[in-house]
Amino acid sequence: MTSGPNASAPGALAAVRPLAIICGGGDFPIALAQAAIAAGRAPFLVGLVGSADERIEAFPHLWLRLGEVGKFFAALAERGVAEVVAVGFVKRPELADLRIDFGAVKRLPALAALFGGGDNQLLAGIAKLLENEGLALVGVHDVAPQLVAPSGALTRRAPSAAALADAKLGAAAIAALSPFDVGQAVIVAKGRVLAVEAAEGTDSMLARIAELRASGRIALKGRAGVLVKTPKRDQEMRLDMPAVGLQTIDAAARADLEGVALAAGKVLVIDRDACAKAADQAGLFLHGMAL
Amino acid sequence: MTSGPNASAPGALAAVRPLAIICGGGDFPIALAQAAIAAGRAPFLVGLVGSADERIEAFPHLWLRLGEVGKFFAALAERGVAEVVAVGFVKRPELADLRIDFGAVKRLPALAALFGGGDNQLLAGIAKLLENEGLALVGVHDVAPQLVAPSGALTRRAPSAAALADAKLGAAAIAALSPFDVGQAVIVAKGRVLAVEAAEGTDSMLARIAELRASGRIALKGRAGVLVKTPKRDQEMRLDMPAVGLQTIDAAARADLEGVALAAGKVLVIDRDACAKAADQAGLFLHGMAL
Repeated sequence: MTSGPNASAPGALAAVRPLAIICGGGDFPIALAQAAIAAGRAPFLVGLVGSADERIEAFPHLWLRLGEVGKFFAALAERGVAEVVAVGFVKRPELADLRIDFGAVKRLPALAALFGGGDNQLLAGIAKLLENEGLALVGVHDVAPQLVAPSGALTRRAPSAAALADAKLGAAAIAALSPFDVGQAVIVAKGRVLAVEAAEGTDSMLARIAELRASGRIALKGRAGVLVKTPKRDQEMRLDMPAVGLQTIDAAARADLEGVALAAGKVLVIDRDACAKAADQAGLFLHGMAL
Repeated sequence: MTSGPNASAPGALAAVRPLAIICGGGDFPIALAQAAIAAGRAPFLVGLVGSADERIEAFPHLWLRLGEVGKFFAALAERGVAEVVAVGFVKRPELADLRIDFGAVKRLPALAALFGGGDNQLLAGIAKLLENEGLALVGVHDVAPQLVAPSGALTRRAPSAAALADAKLGAAAIAALSPFDVGQAVIVAKGRVLAVEAAEGTDSMLARIAELRASGRIALKGRAGVLVKTPKRDQEMRLDMPAVGLQTIDAAARADLEGVALAAGKVLVIDRDACAKAADQAGLFLHGMAL
């Protein structure tokens, strides 16, 4: 018995285009790997030691320390990977944390240049480095468009006019901070910016507002405030897209916000159905703004 | 025996110009009252219920709820007070927290207009309200210039060139956020803005950086980072001047920062000598930037 042309012959294997997923922390890499499989791709998960979750081991994977550049490129070449996507929270390394292999030494000037400034510079540098090796850096929205926020309401509840005005104010504040390569999220209530995200991350910022409200330092009654999440202006969208997930919705509910406003097409929403359901249960709106 | 003209005759009393100090929370109102006495003024402390510290009771004082506007103006008129200064952290009230007296009802449209936007609007509105009553709103720098940051180093240690560059970047970030009426402080390390202050206040922001460093979420080795504190652009300097005190220096030391950079002439430093001594002991710089 011989196998037909559509079974596991070399030709059929080549048709399943492999995709390397550089994995930072959190749920997003796992969700993306599942979405890639659903889209007929063969994901190869490259977990950054110290950042990525152990659950990547459920998929074909490789653990990598920052600086193991030669090992990375060799592993991708071996598997015929031509496309790379990166997702998840990465701890920003100090130079002392790097494990410099020979492949890194060869590229040292380009690598050293990565560590001079803010996130945008770091990420744009990584994109260029990959392209120099003949690898295409793709965005999550290319691989799994269903993971990106659509336009309009995702929930039963829609934002009030006041909440929409707060959302626009927040988006403008994020844009004003863009040259400083800071956060991608703010919390606004009644025309006032209550919190600006920088190194702490969105969930920690939301927890702060919950605490400030509980202690009376912020005196808002009932449901109030909007979490606004948009990319920075000129953000390298193929890396470090802002993202929300179930824990963002939970944290927003604990902060007693009115809702969450996302830049449509520019923010990842991991497990959209679960997020919408959790938001509905908590009475929050989840809304994609056209920006 | 008759008293001479320089004893407690009415003429001598009138020469001691009374000064009303509207007191929010913290040490600053107390320090200002002491500085006013040292400058030959007679302070009258108006403590905001829920914000001001009980230590104001060591001075001539009056407790006031927000909204007791008639009571406030009557008390000042009774004591012949013509100048008002305001200092200390005030919890931003919800309309429901106000105690509206008849004096407030008479001025209700002007008062209601105070609560529409950010801090700058609120404070400018208060200044105007006072001036409508024939009271001069003065700044802390007018009453007690020794409480304002001078230019240059206050400590043995001076900022490195890199720290000065971080301080300038931080000042630019605060300026960029000015239209949004947000914070007056940021923390910058190695060209990266790590934290932006909004409703949480400076000490809480510093505590956050200490935690993020302790947990490894921010991977900086040793002394690193600068707390930058400047007023917002176009800030009403007679109210809500940014301020640092001993607890700011302690919090900066706990966050393992390199130092603290202040806009010279525009930031209050309560107990300058104690702050400089604490900074020296912790190995921090405390520096007044010309902006």
